Amino acid sequence: MKALVVGGDGFLGSYFVEQALNLGHDVTVFDRFPYDRANNLEHVRNKVRFFPGEFANRVEVVNALEEQDIVYHFISATNPATSWENPSIEIEENLKYSIQLFELAVQNGVKKLVFVSSGGTVYGPQNGIITEEVLPKPFSPYGICKLSIEHFLNYFHERHHIAADIYRVGNAYGPRQPMQAPQGVIAVWMGKVLRGEALTVYGDSDTYRDYIYAEDIAYLMTHSLSDLKKSDVYNLGTGRGVSILELLNIFLSVINEPIQYQIFPRRGLDNSSVILDSSKLTTFFPEFTFQQLEDKIPETWAYVRQHHIGNDGKDTGI
Amino acid sequence: MKALVVGGDGFLGSYFVEQALNLGHDVTVFDRFPYDRANNLEHVRNKVRFFPGEFANRVEVVNALEEQDIVYHFISATNPATSWENPSIEIEENLKYSIQLFELAVQNGVKKLVFVSSGGTVYGPQNGIITEEVLPKPFSPYGICKLSIEHFLNYFHERHHIAADIYRVGNAYGPRQPMQAPQGVIAVWMGKVLRGEALTVYGDSDTYRDYIYAEDIAYLMTHSLSDLKKSDVYNLGTGRGVSILELLNIFLSVINEPIQYQIFPRRGLDNSSVILDSSKLTTFFPEFTFQQLEDKIPETWAYVRQHHIGNDGKDTGI
Repeated sequence: MKALVVGGDGFLGSYFVEQALNLGHDVTVFDRFPYDRANNLEHVRNKVRFFPGEFANRVEVVNALEEQDIVYHFISATNPATSWENPSIEIEENLKYSIQLFELAVQNGVKKLVFVSSGGTVYGPQNGIITEEVLPKPFSPYGICKLSIEHFLNYFHERHHIAADIYRVGNAYGPRQPMQAPQGVIAVWMGKVLRGEALTVYGDSDTYRDYIYAEDIAYLMTHSLSDLKKSDVYNLGTGRGVSILELLNIFLSVINEPIQYQIFPRRGLDNSSVILDSSKLTTFFPEFTFQQLEDKIPETWAYVRQHHIGNDGKDTGI
Repeated sequence: MKALVVGGDGFLGSYFVEQALNLGHDVTVFDRFPYDRANNLEHVRNKVRFFPGEFANRVEVVNALEEQDIVYHFISATNPATSWENPSIEIEENLKYSIQLFELAVQNGVKKLVFVSSGGTVYGPQNGIITEEVLPKPFSPYGICKLSIEHFLNYFHERHHIAADIYRVGNAYGPRQPMQAPQGVIAVWMGKVLRGEALTVYGDSDTYRDYIYAEDIAYLMTHSLSDLKKSDVYNLGTGRGVSILELLNIFLSVINEPIQYQIFPRRGLDNSSVILDSSKLTTFFPEFTFQQLEDKIPETWAYVRQHHIGNDGKDTGI
């Protein structure tokens, strides 16, 4: 199957590209590739087609869409914090160009669209474990526009009969996550340790998150490759709620160095609790079990440290 | 209380302005007022402040917002049919300027926002009578952006602590409804009768709608004036489902003239069934009963005929 992965050189996208290659698919990656270099996919350069371009650029997107069967949309130009002060950013940077991508995909005969939505923000305040049937109450511009993009996929499905899968992903973490971003607390903390800064901890023992390893996300998202006609929306989290203080304890025990940290109240833009029931999706993978924080934070830390020291002396921007 | 009614000279807005005046509120109307003339509010010109302006124009909107306690947002630059072919219209014409209005309202100290949403499109395909707790599945760009605007009100509420009420209105009808629009089947049919054209009927005996008289909508929307601190979302329909063929029968018996009509299949952009449970709202009005189609289509037809003949000979555009 010919799959285009838009944003495929990013954190989550790159893990998905690897999974799709493992399954023998014909993968094209649309991403920026500055200086003709991949951030995360240099090691598979010979197995995929790199398509450098800007998500906003219609012509570049159209070129990449040619003859594709399925398009995975991993691009997010923002994060929950950036648009909290200026909500229009979500509309201008994410919503409009996502619709443009879907329109161009329809025009180019693509059979299926796959969108990476946000389990952490589309539901808004909820109690307990969240299924896909819960009434979403998003309140951050980030989550509002993610949900709006999901609904536009309903439109393209009804109007143009293109299939669409949606994955509402929990709190992703893993080796390739950017440490400079305001999103992804585990990576952000690792960055701070490397720079000798104090950790910032927002929230308390009532602030639950569902941390999911990037490789697990990528593996489960291969489900969409199995049937080009089926459309559905899936939660993508482990179902295990971990409080921010529990996470801190796991983190501190892994790092095993003296580390300063400061605890602040939960930010207004964050939900108190996000725990996702993903059984609708995992039913298709009877052998699958989620990888655990206690195993994967050490692995992530080992990767990050090695990457920071840098075999090639390259400045990693930390 | 000082209330600004944005789009207050339109069909639904004008009925609301009358209700707010009846209750003794200090009403300002922001609308286009071409040639300094109101479409629907000339008869109350001495009781309200007219504020001519374009919804898209920040400066004009800001001027109207000064010292207002509550803002009712009745503007819709589109209808479900216009954006079915070009979904970006919703974002450019409705979503962006609605957010702009809310931002400016926050900056100008407004205490409460009230938004006219669409019970007919935000829910998408559903069976039976719909409460506010039903999971919305919008698929028309019109409904998608209405729901997105609702969610942005959550944002402004969380971020800036401004109160917000949302009314998801059923199929409105009544004397002042434009007959040229592609929306509002009763008015559209009346326009066709006046022009001697055949009626177009989309749908069948399974196509149910919840027709609600404009005056009832306006009356129930005064609820938001009772408490500037409360926020909620309310359905606003009668709870009576009427099939399009039933509606045709009622209509034909009222008009009482030989009328041609053509029946077509339901359009792709239309839901099969919309019947709204409004008990959450009507609880606040224990004496209230909905006016019925059988009484109000004749009244609407009488108004429309008189208006068409025109006491002042003015071209009504039909």
